[in-house]
Parts: sequence; C-alpha cells; structure tokens
Amino acid sequence: MKEIANAIGVSTPALKELFRRDVLRRAFVKHPFFSDVFEAYKLDRKFGSLEEGTLIAKTTDRIEIVRGFPKIKRALTLFPTIKKHFDGDVAIEEKMNGYNVRIVKFGEKLYAITRGGFICPYTTEKVRLFFDDSFFKDYPNLMLCCEAVGEESPYVPSSIYGERLDFYVFDVRDRKTNSPLPIKEKERICEEYGFKMATIFDIVDCRIAHEVVRDVVEKIGKEGREGVVIKDVEMKVPPIKYTTSQANCSDLSYGFKYFGEYGKDFLFSRLIREGFQSWEFGEVEEVMNERALRIGKSILFSMVESIRDVKDKGKIYERMRLRFYDLEVFELFKEHVRRMGVSAKFSEPIQDEDGIYIVHYYKYMKSTTDTVKHILEGNLWS
Amino acid sequence: MKEIANAIGVSTPALKELFRRDVLRRAFVKHPFFSDVFEAYKLDRKFGSLEEGTLIAKTTDRIEIVRGFPKIKRALTLFPTIKKHFDGDVAIEEKMNGYNVRIVKFGEKLYAITRGGFICPYTTEKVRLFFDDSFFKDYPNLMLCCEAVGEESPYVPSSIYGERLDFYVFDVRDRKTNSPLPIKEKERICEEYGFKMATIFDIVDCRIAHEVVRDVVEKIGKEGREGVVIKDVEMKVPPIKYTTSQANCSDLSYGFKYFGEYGKDFLFSRLIREGFQSWEFGEVEEVMNERALRIGKSILFSMVESIRDVKDKGKIYERMRLRFYDLEVFELFKEHVRRMGVSAKFSEPIQDEDGIYIVHYYKYMKSTTDTVKHILEGNLWS
Repeated sequence: MKEIANAIGVSTPALKELFRRDVLRRAFVKHPFFSDVFEAYKLDRKFGSLEEGTLIAKTTDRIEIVRGFPKIKRALTLFPTIKKHFDGDVAIEEKMNGYNVRIVKFGEKLYAITRGGFICPYTTEKVRLFFDDSFFKDYPNLMLCCEAVGEESPYVPSSIYGERLDFYVFDVRDRKTNSPLPIKEKERICEEYGFKMATIFDIVDCRIAHEVVRDVVEKIGKEGREGVVIKDVEMKVPPIKYTTSQANCSDLSYGFKYFGEYGKDFLFSRLIREGFQSWEFGEVEEVMNERALRIGKSILFSMVESIRDVKDKGKIYERMRLRFYDLEVFELFKEHVRRMGVSAKFSEPIQDEDGIYIVHYYKYMKSTTDTVKHILEGNLWS
Repeated sequence: MKEIANAIGVSTPALKELFRRDVLRRAFVKHPFFSDVFEAYKLDRKFGSLEEGTLIAKTTDRIEIVRGFPKIKRALTLFPTIKKHFDGDVAIEEKMNGYNVRIVKFGEKLYAITRGGFICPYTTEKVRLFFDDSFFKDYPNLMLCCEAVGEESPYVPSSIYGERLDFYVFDVRDRKTNSPLPIKEKERICEEYGFKMATIFDIVDCRIAHEVVRDVVEKIGKEGREGVVIKDVEMKVPPIKYTTSQANCSDLSYGFKYFGEYGKDFLFSRLIREGFQSWEFGEVEEVMNERALRIGKSILFSMVESIRDVKDKGKIYERMRLRFYDLEVFELFKEHVRRMGVSAKFSEPIQDEDGIYIVHYYKYMKSTTDTVKHILEGNLWS
C-alpha cells in the first residue's frame, strides 16, 4: 500500500480515502495469466496530473505507472477551428471505431490495458499472440497506443475491419510521462517492428487542412468509417477529432437501441454534431433531406427493434462473438466482466477446426428492458 | 404575511423559509389594472397537497387560493394503458397546443393565471374582453381552465387556430379544492354561457378507446393538431394525454432551434414517444421511413437555421406578434416579462385601423446564441 501511495505522491491515509471514494479501484483479476503483476489499481477520475484510466501496478520488477490516454477534444466545425488550434503541418489520421488499448510489458510478458485502466484478459491474450516483445526490449519506457478493432471485440464490435480482433497503432508514448513521439518517429517504429498503423491520409499545412479533412471525411463516411484525428506532426499540441455523419448516426442507432443504458448526453451530442456539419458543408436541401433521413432512421428503427425484442423475447441483450485460444482466459474474462459490473451470459465454447474456442457473449441491457417492459404493461410515463 | 402563512397552513417563519428557498415567489406586478389584488404569490414547486402553480392572493374580498392545474400523465402506448387506467366510459378530448390558463374572478374583475401561477396582464386583458362575469356570479367557487391558443400568443404561438388569441375551456374546477366537474356538467356550462370548448371527439368504453384514439390521432395529426386527453366521464380518475407524431416533431423542431435553451430531457422524451407510437401502430417500412424523415428534418433543419442565424445576424431571437387594446397593459406586460427573467426586445406599438396596438416581441435565446458563437469562433467541444 505504501508503495502505491508513494507512486502517486500521497500519504497512506490519503490513498485509503481515494479507495473509499472509488477514485482508485482494482484494475485486474489476480490469475497466473497475469503472473508478472502482484497488485494493480486504476484511476476512475483525473487525479492531479494523472489522467483518468491511469494504471498503477506492482509488478515483479517494480512499481509501474502507465498514464491514461488523454481525452481528445472535438471540432464541431473544421474552419476556423483547425487553423486556430495548430501551427504548421498537421497529419490527418484515421480514427478507427474500436476500443483504445495501451500495450506495455511488465516483467516477462505483454499486457493490454483498456481506456478505463483495466488489464483486459481477452485483449491481453491476443496482444501476446500478435506482438513479439522485441520493441519493448528496445524501448522499455514506451507504450503502444492502439485501436483494437474487429467483429470479435467484446467492447466495440464492428465488422468493417474484418472478423478477427486486430490492432492499429496510432500513438507511441512514454508510459510514465505520457509524452508522444512525433508522427515520423511513430511511422519509423511501426515500419521497423512491423506494426499495423492507423492510416495517415495526408500531411498538410493547418491553414488548408479544413478542406482536406472535409474531402477525407466525406469519402470515408461513405465507406462507413468513423472519422479522423488531426495531429500536429511534432505532437507538441493536443490532437483534435472529427467524425463522419455515418459514425454519428451509427452511434445514434446503437444509443437508441439501448436508450435506457445510454445517456441523453451521448445522444444529444451526436445530433448537435450533425447540425454543425450540415451547416458547414453548405448542404443543399436534397442533401439535407438525405442526412435527415439517415438521422431519423438511426433513431427510430433501433428503438422500434428494441421494443419489439422486449415484446417478443422479454429481454434485450447485445450479442457478441468472441474467440479464445485458451479456456483459462475465457474463465478469467468472465470474472473480468463481472468485476466491471456487466450482467452477462455466455454460450458454451465451441472449438473450431483449428482448435480455437468460439463463444457468444450476451450483455444484458437491464435499464432498456425494464423501461420498455414497464410501458408495455400499460403504465404511464410521468 | 400572517394571512398568507395561515392560508397555506404554515407558521410565519416557515413562510419566510419558503420565500428564501424560492418555493414561493411573487406572482404579479402591482398595477391599477390588477386593482382587486393587494398581494399574490405562486408556488414554484408542489407543497403539501398544493400543486406547483398554485396562487395565493390577498384580494379586496379575502385571501384566495387558486389551485395549480394538475400535471397530466402521458401514455406512451394506448393499449393496454387506457383500459388499465380507466373504468367505464372515457371522453376523448382535443389537447390543443397553447398555454394553460385558469380564469377566476377576484373582487370586481376577471384574472388570467398561467400554468406557473403568474397573473398575466396580456392574457387578463383578453379574458376581460371575451368573457363576461355572469358565470362567476353564478359559480363564485369555480374556475375555467382553458387553453389559450392562436398566433398572437406570447408563450406558445401557433397559427393553426387563427390569428387572435382565443380561449377553449377544457375543465371547470373548484378553485380551492381543484375538484373537476364531470364532462356533462362542463358541457352544460359551456353551452349555457357560450364558452368555446376543446372538441370532444367521442365518448366510448375504455376497453375500445385505444382503437378510437388511434384513429383520431392519425386524423388530427395530418392537420397539424397536437393530440388528445382521455378523461373519465365522471372525472373521478386523473386524465391521461397522448400526442400526434406531428406535435412531437413540431416540439423537436422548436427544441433543436433553441437547443441551448431546451433541455436534453425535453428533446429525448419526444424521440422516445415516436418510437413507441411507431411500434404500436405496427408501421410498415415505408411508413417508418416517412416518420424517420419527419423526425430527422425536425432536428436537422431547425439546428442549421439557428447556426445560420448566428452567423448572419449574430443573435437568435424568437419573434412573436402581440396585440394590445391598451398601452398601459403593454407597459405592464413588459415588466411582467422582465420579472419572469426573459431577456426581450419590443418593437414600437403600431395602431391598426381599429385603434388596436400591434407589437413585435423578440425573445432573446442567449444560451443557443452563445454556444453557436463559441463554436463558430473555432473553439473546441469538450
């Protein structure tokens, strides 16, 4: 306890208070699969200079601090926002629709930490299969910040990137200081070690970037892709993000399907984004009608589907397909999900021709289920 | 003060506490136009058995309590909600889209109280012109609960009911006990005294009412009308309301035009209503597409209009046209609006051929203006 307190620069009583207030929470399930880690805690809120999602771990080597991935602010209009925010050249990089993972090496093995700061057994298993540790031997202080994408994702499943969970590096950062490498350095490292990298569409002067981003966003939107992150090539200024209409609407569709689980803020902010984009793109009425239909359908069809599901099946679940190479990891993942407070069911694992276990993961959407059931029973809405 | 405290059954110190906590607020602007009222306060929240919007007034005669109009709960699905809630016959009455007004007589004159409990000079002026006081002489304990509708409305302007502000009685209640007259009694009174009444579309057994309401709602929706209130003919059970898709979308359009002023709750609830209605009406894909387009357009077009307004004109105002018969009332109304915390501008009154004053009332939408301006200046969205 004292070592953890020291690591984040507080007294032992102050540390206890952080636990009591749930600012600090356990970040992993103890298991031989995580044998290099004795203890690990995550920050559930920003604390001093440490970001939300920061992990503090006592490993076989030492006390490690892995800084949380910083929140990226959003542009609602491209002009004059980009030119006001940056100076000189910016990289226009793809923002993929998956979940944020920081890959680090503790002791002898690799570990995958999700955005919130949990060490995820499912992700860690894949990371250990896909990445060798030569990079981490050469650069022990760095972490790979990746987007984990694919259909077989337990958090953000999306079929546009293919079936298997895959990792695309978008930042390489000092895990202790959170300082990012310049774009060129990141590219060099990814090439040298053979890492897949989030696509860099272009590098342009920030004064014309709004035009380039618009073209990119309109093109990739049609392909159902999420958006872009605009980055200072030197990474001296914080990046900013901007999303396609299709991504906003895909979020709306998901959010209204599980409208009891997803906050009004989540839904409202996506609608506001659509308004500013439509205005900035100077859309004519016909194009606005197309966008309006896309928005309306995202909202309406998913809500009706959920109501129908409660009526017909009694409950609403989100259904995901997962792949495990080791049944022990499946057991560990089930415990991990329980710890995260998710109410879930799992199918029996079925081995495919390669001996790999396929599992269906059903995430119960209790709030939406309860609300819809209450209404369908004939109760009034206040 | 002691008399007011007595009237609502609290001690004088407790009354002071209610003022301090803004539960109780001044309900009118002292003026010869309101010469029968010495003091008047309104409840800004439910207090004991007294509804929000209850008015407590010291008049030339006595201390008067005018109960707040009770909140009407909403059905999200017609079946089995109506049949579960009621017993026997129900009246299916039009819910008009205006503002709720209680008309009472204090001393020598009539007074119009808005939903929140303010005595409104604008409404009172019209009420005194349109209603004679014979009803109140015959029934001094009763109040007329009306919907004030029309284009010339300072609160909810709508052109579908005509230009002039007009009043439609929907309930007749005991002003002190809030007990409502049965539907037949209300009809008899309105006929006898020549009051306009909210249309009663049908009176049917509650077990088949869901079908009748659906037909009515689909029909009046196409005419842009708001919805229905379903009432126990004896008024022994609280009524419930149900709105057309067109009304939900009209609210969305208004709410997204002034998205800084209107809460996420306001907008979110209207979207949820659309989902349940579409599901219950068993809509085929083509009809769902029409509804989706209507929803999407309501959201998108009004937001873009507001962004354009800030860009082009710097500020967003809601513009309303009002009619005053007496310039003193106009002055009083300006003060009333200030007291309500509205930031407004008024045009110079212009006399029409009948000597009546026409005024334009511009309600400043500060929050939407500020948000849009902030974004258009190139600032980031957190």
